[in-house]
Amino acid sequence: MALSTDFGPATALSCRECGTRFDVGPNFACIECFGPLEVAYEFGNVTRADIESGPTNIWRYRGLLPVPDDVATKPNLQPGWTKLVKADNLAGELGMRSLYVKDDSGNPTHSFKDRVVAIAVEAARNFGFSTLSCSSTGNLAGAVGAAAARAGLDSCVFVPANLEEAKIVVASVYGGRLVGIDGTYDEVNRFCSELIGDELGEKWGFVNVNLRPYYAEGSKTLAYEIAEQLGWRIPDQIVIPVASGSQLTKIDKGFKELIRLGLVEEKEYRIFAAQATGCAPVSAAYKAGHDVVQPVRPDTIAKSLAIGNPADGPYVLDIARRTGGAVEDVSDREIVAAVRLLARTEGVFAETAGGVVLGVTQKLLENGKLDPDAETVILNTGEGLKTLDAVSAEARPAAVIRPSLDAFRTAFAN
Amino acid sequence: MALSTDFGPATALSCRECGTRFDVGPNFACIECFGPLEVAYEFGNVTRADIESGPTNIWRYRGLLPVPDDVATKPNLQPGWTKLVKADNLAGELGMRSLYVKDDSGNPTHSFKDRVVAIAVEAARNFGFSTLSCSSTGNLAGAVGAAAARAGLDSCVFVPANLEEAKIVVASVYGGRLVGIDGTYDEVNRFCSELIGDELGEKWGFVNVNLRPYYAEGSKTLAYEIAEQLGWRIPDQIVIPVASGSQLTKIDKGFKELIRLGLVEEKEYRIFAAQATGCAPVSAAYKAGHDVVQPVRPDTIAKSLAIGNPADGPYVLDIARRTGGAVEDVSDREIVAAVRLLARTEGVFAETAGGVVLGVTQKLLENGKLDPDAETVILNTGEGLKTLDAVSAEARPAAVIRPSLDAFRTAFAN
Ligand SMILES: Cc1ncc(COP(=O)(O)O)c(C=O)c1O
Ligand SMILES: Cc1ncc(COP(=O)(O)O)c(C=O)c1O
Ligand SMILES: [Zn+2]
Ligand SMILES: [Zn+2]
Repeated sequence: MALSTDFGPATALSCRECGTRFDVGPNFACIECFGPLEVAYEFGNVTRADIESGPTNIWRYRGLLPVPDDVATKPNLQPGWTKLVKADNLAGELGMRSLYVKDDSGNPTHSFKDRVVAIAVEAARNFGFSTLSCSSTGNLAGAVGAAAARAGLDSCVFVPANLEEAKIVVASVYGGRLVGIDGTYDEVNRFCSELIGDELGEKWGFVNVNLRPYYAEGSKTLAYEIAEQLGWRIPDQIVIPVASGSQLTKIDKGFKELIRLGLVEEKEYRIFAAQATGCAPVSAAYKAGHDVVQPVRPDTIAKSLAIGNPADGPYVLDIARRTGGAVEDVSDREIVAAVRLLARTEGVFAETAGGVVLGVTQKLLENGKLDPDAETVILNTGEGLKTLDAVSAEARPAAVIRPSLDAFRTAFAN
Repeated sequence: MALSTDFGPATALSCRECGTRFDVGPNFACIECFGPLEVAYEFGNVTRADIESGPTNIWRYRGLLPVPDDVATKPNLQPGWTKLVKADNLAGELGMRSLYVKDDSGNPTHSFKDRVVAIAVEAARNFGFSTLSCSSTGNLAGAVGAAAARAGLDSCVFVPANLEEAKIVVASVYGGRLVGIDGTYDEVNRFCSELIGDELGEKWGFVNVNLRPYYAEGSKTLAYEIAEQLGWRIPDQIVIPVASGSQLTKIDKGFKELIRLGLVEEKEYRIFAAQATGCAPVSAAYKAGHDVVQPVRPDTIAKSLAIGNPADGPYVLDIARRTGGAVEDVSDREIVAAVRLLARTEGVFAETAGGVVLGVTQKLLENGKLDPDAETVILNTGEGLKTLDAVSAEARPAAVIRPSLDAFRTAFAN
């Protein structure tokens, strides 16, 4: 693979804590203060018209991402441009005035992870990594497997061994190597950091470790799409699920960039973070008024959000507080009820992470933190088919009968 | 629900066998000859520019469909505009020059059925049906359930009780009524015809029975999208899965309309039909040189294609022969291998129906019926997550280990 250094408008990596700048490279932690590195840009003149004439995938925003200008012509899964569903039925049930569901189950491997992986693949190409890797709560492993297959890269992905059956199959069906780890995601993640420090993994591109600064930028496209699909407007309120917290911090970054570039009007918006009670370290810190996040050991059916020690937890707290949002959590029972509510009202079958978001939305309405009259976007970041067990006890046939009118009449006589 | 009679450019129903014309209405069989009814149109002046400026879903083709002009503003799932994947890796493995996969797993409920149901929902609205129904091999039931939920209609869907777990859950999670039938799809279908004739079902809109003429038109959008995505060009060859045969006949109709309207250049194209050997009545008739299709009792893992008595079988035979195509079938083992091949090469995880198409493509290349140098489109009409069992024995972790470098080294030492 020929090395290149074309990262489009990206000009440097910059430390989120101390601001020190570094050359664009496969680095993720500041050598001064160990803070996380972020991509810094010098944007050219990006107009709405440029974007609107681009492809119907995330590459329409290539001028705002660390990718070469010809990225859309390379073999990748072309994620994004998923539906922003105007959820009038659901809004009616919740007593809300204007509600949208950004439905990222429409992505190629049916979660928002295809967005972040697509950027990481470009970085991997640029840095000459021929093996893609990651630690994953499930969705990322499948997204990496599929993207690597299309891009002609090898892959080796790591997941907790107790994942949902569908996520295990998806993580291995694309022909890369899947390794199950006896342990939590946080143990998987720590193990991956060791691998990078060892000759075993030093030549690999771990999308969410040594490629994390690039990878994370992919989530900005959710902000861009939501604003564009609303007619170039930022919503008043948005509810976002939190595992590591990366997605939430980048959606905030995306909105800020749109304002700075004059692509949308300046406005105040409030960002709400959603967790499962069985893994709610950020919510606990928020409620306790803390700035630091105390790690927990996850126990929830929302396995994709089961990160007990979230890397970007403090930034989530900061953003929720600064924008006038909040962090909230819901029980497994509430998650299942919310998955069913979304399916019943809008025909969107979300994975448990989507149930977390809708459940938290309901709770925030009840406790008055979310304004029912303000324009609100909630995220469904994954696909119900990957977490069937959450609803399979309740989503059953009303009856199983012989093919006869009599049998039908008997079964449904009232 | 207010009745309306706005079917856009549709002007009549016309008998496919004897040509007798009928008013647009909830009818599906000719009273003269019992032949199937089809929608007839008087198209206005539809230009490429009109279409290209439309929404990125099937409604960009509303001028070619039996729907009102404002259809895109009504509550529906907005299916379509799925990816046409340039499958260079797969083409390389198969020794083909130019191969595309039309990947309909990107639809809202992850099969092409969302296209046909969206049209049927409009017809149901027009005719005042408040309950949507269907007989289904699985995907249709989920598509109807979701579409009814979004549209605010009731639903009651019928499936063989032995379907895949994922399809059972999807068919019921949207809150409509799912009825399992002890029997084959053909028995389910016969039962539904009885229901329509009875007071139990006479007020229901069965999307694939009394609404079938409208429903079936939805598959034309696959032809339109493929041509537009190729740059307004019909491919030389296309491989299409066959259950009832409706989709295949309508893709042919769609191509012919594009030519007639001058939206693409006139050209010859060859249509190939794909079945599973365990349910291959059309392939058997083709190979025997027959014009009629002898019903079979299905036994295949490609359950979505398990229709033993296909309504449009004779038309499929006719189209394959007339266009210089063929009908072919593959075994369950070949289906699984093809699902894995597509995943490994292109990062597309197809359901077994997609495996049937790719498996048949391989077989047609081997027996010289498909030209490896001609531009070819193959269809993936469904989602691998719905037929996990087909690959779950093989798509497993390479190893399950403790989170330590030593454990990793031990597991993967060579
Ligand atoms: C479906 C889904 N939603 C949300 C998230 C949260 O992402 P983040 O780690 O960026 O907070 C994940 C992470 O795996 C996920 O799989
Ligand atoms: C995934 C999939 N592909 C193809 C078909 C075939 O459709 P048709 O009955 O129009 O031949 C079906 C029908 O259920 C299906 O579910
Ligand atoms: Zn620093
Ligand atoms: Zn007739």
